Parts: sequence; structure tokens; C-alpha cells
Amino acid sequence: MSGYPLDEILHPKSIAVAGASADGRGAGFVSPLIELGFRGKIYPVNPKYAGQNIMGLKTYATVREIPEPVDFVISSIPATQVLGLLDDCAAKGVKGIHFFTARFSETGRPEAAQLEKEVLRRARAANIRLIGPNCMGVYYPAWGVSFSEGMPKQSGVIGCASQSGSAVHEIVEMARQRGCYFTKAISYGNAIDLNECDYLEYYAQDEDTKIIVMYIEGVRDGKRFFKSLRRTTLKKPVIIIKGGRGRAGTRATASHTASLAGAMEVWHTAVRQAGAVEVSTIEELADVAAAFYFLPPVYGVRAGVVGGSGGSSVMGADQCEEAGLDVIPMPNDIREELKKRGSPIWDWISNPADFSIQMGDSGSGGDITLLMGEHPDFDLIIQYLSPPHSWGGRGRPVLPIEEHLKHSGVGAIKKPMFIVLQDRGRSTSDTTGESLRKFNEFRDKLVENRLPTYPTIGAAANAAAKMVAFYQNRERAIAAACL
Amino acid sequence: MSGYPLDEILHPKSIAVAGASADGRGAGFVSPLIELGFRGKIYPVNPKYAGQNIMGLKTYATVREIPEPVDFVISSIPATQVLGLLDDCAAKGVKGIHFFTARFSETGRPEAAQLEKEVLRRARAANIRLIGPNCMGVYYPAWGVSFSEGMPKQSGVIGCASQSGSAVHEIVEMARQRGCYFTKAISYGNAIDLNECDYLEYYAQDEDTKIIVMYIEGVRDGKRFFKSLRRTTLKKPVIIIKGGRGRAGTRATASHTASLAGAMEVWHTAVRQAGAVEVSTIEELADVAAAFYFLPPVYGVRAGVVGGSGGSSVMGADQCEEAGLDVIPMPNDIREELKKRGSPIWDWISNPADFSIQMGDSGSGGDITLLMGEHPDFDLIIQYLSPPHSWGGRGRPVLPIEEHLKHSGVGAIKKPMFIVLQDRGRSTSDTTGESLRKFNEFRDKLVENRLPTYPTIGAAANAAAKMVAFYQNRERAIAAACL
Repeated sequence: MSGYPLDEILHPKSIAVAGASADGRGAGFVSPLIELGFRGKIYPVNPKYAGQNIMGLKTYATVREIPEPVDFVISSIPATQVLGLLDDCAAKGVKGIHFFTARFSETGRPEAAQLEKEVLRRARAANIRLIGPNCMGVYYPAWGVSFSEGMPKQSGVIGCASQSGSAVHEIVEMARQRGCYFTKAISYGNAIDLNECDYLEYYAQDEDTKIIVMYIEGVRDGKRFFKSLRRTTLKKPVIIIKGGRGRAGTRATASHTASLAGAMEVWHTAVRQAGAVEVSTIEELADVAAAFYFLPPVYGVRAGVVGGSGGSSVMGADQCEEAGLDVIPMPNDIREELKKRGSPIWDWISNPADFSIQMGDSGSGGDITLLMGEHPDFDLIIQYLSPPHSWGGRGRPVLPIEEHLKHSGVGAIKKPMFIVLQDRGRSTSDTTGESLRKFNEFRDKLVENRLPTYPTIGAAANAAAKMVAFYQNRERAIAAACL
Repeated sequence: MSGYPLDEILHPKSIAVAGASADGRGAGFVSPLIELGFRGKIYPVNPKYAGQNIMGLKTYATVREIPEPVDFVISSIPATQVLGLLDDCAAKGVKGIHFFTARFSETGRPEAAQLEKEVLRRARAANIRLIGPNCMGVYYPAWGVSFSEGMPKQSGVIGCASQSGSAVHEIVEMARQRGCYFTKAISYGNAIDLNECDYLEYYAQDEDTKIIVMYIEGVRDGKRFFKSLRRTTLKKPVIIIKGGRGRAGTRATASHTASLAGAMEVWHTAVRQAGAVEVSTIEELADVAAAFYFLPPVYGVRAGVVGGSGGSSVMGADQCEEAGLDVIPMPNDIREELKKRGSPIWDWISNPADFSIQMGDSGSGGDITLLMGEHPDFDLIIQYLSPPHSWGGRGRPVLPIEEHLKHSGVGAIKKPMFIVLQDRGRSTSDTTGESLRKFNEFRDKLVENRLPTYPTIGAAANAAAKMVAFYQNRERAIAAACL
């Protein structure tokens, strides 16, 4: 245990679920614990079902009546009943409560805000730490804890803290689609006790967490937050999405998590100065996280783009430059080498390297990829790839995946490589699931090779550019600190 | 026939495919014609297979030897042989040739550029019009013409002209995924004869074409193009994506279609002044096209956003504002009406209307959607929807699609509605195809209701804002013309 308040409440030996019921939402907080294999005790609590079984577990009328110690409580009871629950938890020596329970200050109603204050007061008096209220709580696969069914059992190296529960769902799902998994993901809602600083500082010192991603609507303690953020980004990447950037979004944060969204210019500057990576959608967050997840640090923006067709090469080059990458001309010594090897397109092939122009020639696209992948003028490679089943046909054989990858230079190239994995397999016309299965199989093979995959070159270029900017900033910050 | 050169060559009674072969790419231009049910004669041409059958069709050594008239020729023979083909076509009275054949000026080689000039000279002398070279050619489902297998047989109201063949494939596929189809889609490559102006002017007068989409790398005749564009946008929307916007992209256009990409500032201004809609990716092009495809004109940007959860409402509001929409506060008379109906969240619900806050209450999300959909303060509605199979569960019944839609106000709302259709059904974990099938079924039902669907609220907001800007510009242009 690290001494961080979260460390203790994230490792309960027993969990009570207040408001559990035999059907609907309440049971939803019992079943994910069972599904993820939580090894401690689970106690459903609901006076309506007292003495009965919920999912095979004996149900108690109150937390107080549970005969064994209770470390952590998940509350999905109505807000009107939470003070009684707090008193029971205090009597029982509970260390932490996650309040899924909502309708506090986010309603904008004075009496609800008053109740929220009283919740905090009683929790403080009883030394109970709070996650929430108005949030989904904790997903911690290695500890067998989840707030929702169907979450991955696999652990990874991303730590996520989010004010929004739906954002956590989206983040975990989109990361999974890119082959990335989590140490923990916590939705923390109104943050009346533990707030963004606690979550950030916890992940900063958590050795299993290599990448931190956050969805933040409002910061409770700006000074502490940005100080922690600056310190954290020297150690690991922090990717942040700010909800409530405009007028309407600011109104929405108030009614969502009672946050006061601040002036965006100040925010952007502070995040940049703290060395964190700012993104504006969940998709982008997952795309950038995947780059950090699989690739070593990259310090330059000179990109080699390989494997697209004509139009996609042109549009790809545009999108790379617009993202901030430098799509340099094809180095002359690569041309000379291609000429020496007898390539009929040595003078014509460019960067982006449009492979469609060599159709019918013997020259292999893999050759060009390898030459670019070994050349010192390129800092990184962006490569278009399609699963072999969509690449074959038209007289071309469908290669086995391994051979297809080898042919594409995967495995042989040491340089950081961002894969544009076009999603043809998911066309609307195939509903047998077969092409989706093949697509996934191919994607998994890329993940095994520690390659991040992107649906478009725009997404790949943006992730690459943001990753490079992070490492460049960190280098500068470390250099400045050493002066 | 309209007298436009394209009109004649787009309606051939017979097509010869020069370079057809029993396998590989060449046969590829025979099989799509058969697949799409071309009702005229098809003549494979290849000396190697002369007298044999290709796909059940008698093959000729040369175009000249075909005993019947030939209106149109598709050429996939090597560039070195095209002059002979042109002479044969001239002798035969062919009206148009599509040159899939490449390796002309786009190679950057003087002798190839010289050959291209000679091709044009001979075609002009023989009164033959050319599509290409270095392009995929014509997809015209109602005439049974296609350059590729697997293209939709269904016709629609979009006319597409693209310098890139892969871009046409992408555009047609992405449009199909949104329920939108084409009158014709033509990839025109190096445009040595018929160029962007011919395609634009043809679609401008083509009554079946209601929306024009273009992918352009370089404009051959800028003065004529922008004059035509200005005239066309008074009649129908034109959506343009420019390939070759940056330095690397400009290099890439040269080696792709031998286009000289111009200064982007000049381009942006000219496109805007001509009243066209500029987009920067194929996805965006398809998103904007879908709005025009299904919705009536919209002239204002005041958006009502309904049906998301907390975090997605906040991020959605941000993305709407960043796209240029005005997410106005919830009108007071809607609040009053909700209060009158006994809604417990009448004072709390906002715009975006986060439906998750009414969980467990009797108030129906459909009520709020209807009230917003009928309220004069909103110009358009953006609504989050999920297929019923992903919405059900957790104690909620899986409604039949029709009931789910009715519950969401679909069908009852007259205002233009943009649907954010979240793609949960396509999660990586389901490879049975079942959730994809259900997702598609639901999307098709929305299409039947003439509703455009978007993968994210950012895409929906951007499409809405660009559509409104088009109609506002057109209104101003018409008003100015009437002064």
C-alpha cells in the first residue's frame, strides 16, 4: 500500500452493494463483480429482499446488519436515503463508498446541494472516502471489480479517471478495439471528496499504470492539479479531454456533474505548459493512447507514408501535413537503391509511396517499405494495410496472415510504425460476421506485433503528431530542469 | 440526349473491353458489366484469347475485327499499345474510350507525357471523347455499367466525379453505409480530354442528379470551372474535396494524376465564393452528402440535442459549437410544459437534453424530443439513437424497432433531424454478425424515414453546419442576383 487514500479503498476484501435488487440496475452492481471474479465477499443490501438471495448471495436489510467486516460500499439507493446509509457505514467501519446515487448538486436545486454537503460532512467525520456521487465508480479488472457487465477481464497499462460514466464505457470499448487495456478506470462524477487530483496522483505513482487518460469537466483544485500534472508528465504521458469547452457545454457540465467549466484559453495554455496531451473526442483519446501503448518514444515528425493507392496517398499526405507531420520527399539514395534493384518505378515512386503504380511489376512493395523503414531520414512510418482477405482476389492469392505481414515489412522494421487498417471487412453488405472475424484476427496479429491501428490516416497522423509533441515537450522540460 | 458530350458516351449500346483476359484485372472490366446487368453487347478484346470465350463472351483480337458497331471502349492494355487501339477505334467509329491504362504524364517521364499528347491528338482527329487516362472510369448502375464488382445495383441521386479511382470506391461505399446511392460515379484520372468542367456541367443539367460530389486534385480550366460551379450551386449542392493541399500532397498529385495543385488560400476562397461545400476527408464528404440526401433545406443553426447521456451531452455540446451550431438554452415554455405534465426534471433538463437523468422516472424521453421538435426556437434536431438490441437489457425490455422509433419521436417530428447512431453493435467482441445485422436493420429503418445517420455527434454537427451554410449562401446569392 502506497499511503494514497485510493490505494486502500481500491483493494477491498469485501464489498456491500446497497440498493441491490433481483432485477434491473441495482443487481447490475452485483453481477459485474461476479463476472470479473471478485475474490472477496459480496453482500447485497436491500431491506426489500432481506434474507433472500440475489444472484446466490444472502441479502441484508442494512449494511449495519452484515455480520462480517465491510471495506467498501457501492450505493445505488435513492439520494433521500443516503444519510442513513452513511451512518450505517460509519458504524460498520467502512473505508470507502462509491455513490452511483445521483440527484445532488448537478440538479441545480439548493436542497440537493445541501444534502451533498451533509454527505461529505458525515463521511469526513467517519473517515470514509467517497467516489462520486453521480458516477459509475470503479473498474479494476485485476482486483475483479467492475461497474458493468461485458468489460474486458484483461488488464493493461492505461489508468483512466473520468467524470463521466458513459465516457469510461466509450474509452474502454474504443481502447479494446485498438488492443489496449486498463489497470483501472474510475468514473468519479461530482467529485465531492476524492477529486481529479487524487486520481491523477494515484496513477502517477501506480507502477502498473504507464499511460494516464482523463475526461474532466471541471477541476476542483486548479493549483494542485496543474502542479501534479506537470510532475506526472515527466514520468508518463497524460492524455486529457475537457468536457464543457463552449457555452452550451458549460451549461451541460453544470447539470451533469455540477462542474464549473473555466475559460478555455487558460485551460489550453495550462495543459500545454504542464506537458499533457489534449484531445477533443473519445476516439482521438483512444487513438493517441494506442500510440503510447505500443510504440517507443518518437522525437521527430519526418514521416514516411507507404502502401496507399493514388487518391489515398494524396489525401493522406494532406492529412499528415495538416496534423503537423513532415512528409519529406523520397530520399535520393532510396531511389538509387531501387534503380540498382531494377525497379521500373524508381524515378516515379514518391513519399507517400503509392504502391498501386507498380501493378503488374515484379518489384515488391515490401522492398520499398523496408528501405524507408531503415532510412535515417524518417522518424516514423505510417503504413496502409488491409486484411489479406480484402487484399486478395482479382487474380491475387489470399496470403496467410503471417506471409501477408512479412510481405508488408511488419516485424522487420524497427522504426515506430502506425498502421492505417482500413475497415472494408466491416462493410454493411456482409452480415455473416465472417469478414469481421477475419478483420479482428488480422488486427490481433498487428497488436501481437505491438502495432497501433487506426481507421483513417488522419487519425494515425494526428496520434503520431501528438505523441511526438509529448516527447519533445518532455525532453525540453527535462533539459530546462537540468540547467 | 442533352447534347453534352458525356451524355452520348455514357449511354453506349455496345462496349468493347480491350485487354480483357481470362483472369486477373483485365477480366475485371468484363465481369462488373455482367454483374450490373448491362443490356447492350459486350466484346472482350485480346489477341491472346482471340476466338476463345471470356466469361461466355466471344473474344476478338482487335476492336477493328468486331463485326457489329462499338460505341464505347474500356482499355486496360499497356500504354505502349494505345496508339494502335486508337486507330482501330477511329476506324470503327467508336464514340468514347475510358483509359484505365496508366503510366502517362503522371510518371513524370517526358516520353510518357509525349505519348499522352499523341493519344489526345489522335482522339480529337477521330472525334473520340476520352475518360482518363489512368482512372477507373464509369459506374452508372441504371445503365448496367460498373468498373468493379460488388458496387450497389441501386441508383440514387448523387453524381460523383473523382480524379481518383480509390476515392470513388470509398465514396460509394461510405455513402452506401449511410443509405445513399448514385446516378453515376466517374473516376477521370489525368483528364486529358473530358475534365472536371465537363463532369460538373453534365451533372448540373442531369435531372436525376440532385447532389454533386467531387474529388479534385488539379483543375485544368479554372476560369470555366468556377463559373460553372457558381451557376451549379444555385441549383444543387456541390461538395468538393481537394487532394493535394500541402507540399507533400502537391508532389503526390503530380505522380498520381499529373495535376498541378494550386495555392490553397486561393482555392478555398474561390470554392466559398462559388457557393460550394468544401470538405477534407471522404468520411466528411459522405456525412455531408447524407444530410443533403435525406433532409429538406435548413436555414438556421439553432440546434436541439437530445438523447445522449451525461458525458456525451457535454462533449456533444462542445462539438456542436465548435462546428458552428448554436446549442441554445432550453426554452422556458418547454420547461413550463414539462412541469405541467408532472416531469420531475422540468427545472433540471437542459439542451443538450441528457435523458439519463430521468432514469427510473415515468417521464418519457419521447415527450421532450417532441416538444423540442415542435418548438420554433430550434432550426434542427440532433438525436442520439441506439438500436433497440443495445438499448434493452438491464431490466429494460428490447422494444420492436417501430415502437423504439415511435418512443424516440421519429416520424412525428417535422424538423430536420440528424441521427447519431452509435456503433455499439459493431463491437469487436461479437463476431457472429448478429449485432451487425440488427444494427443494419435499424439503420435501414432510419433511412426509410429519410433520416441521415452519423457515427459521432461531431460528424452530425459538422454535416448540419455545412448544410446550413450552403443554403444560407445560396439564399444570399439569389438575393444578390435579384437586386
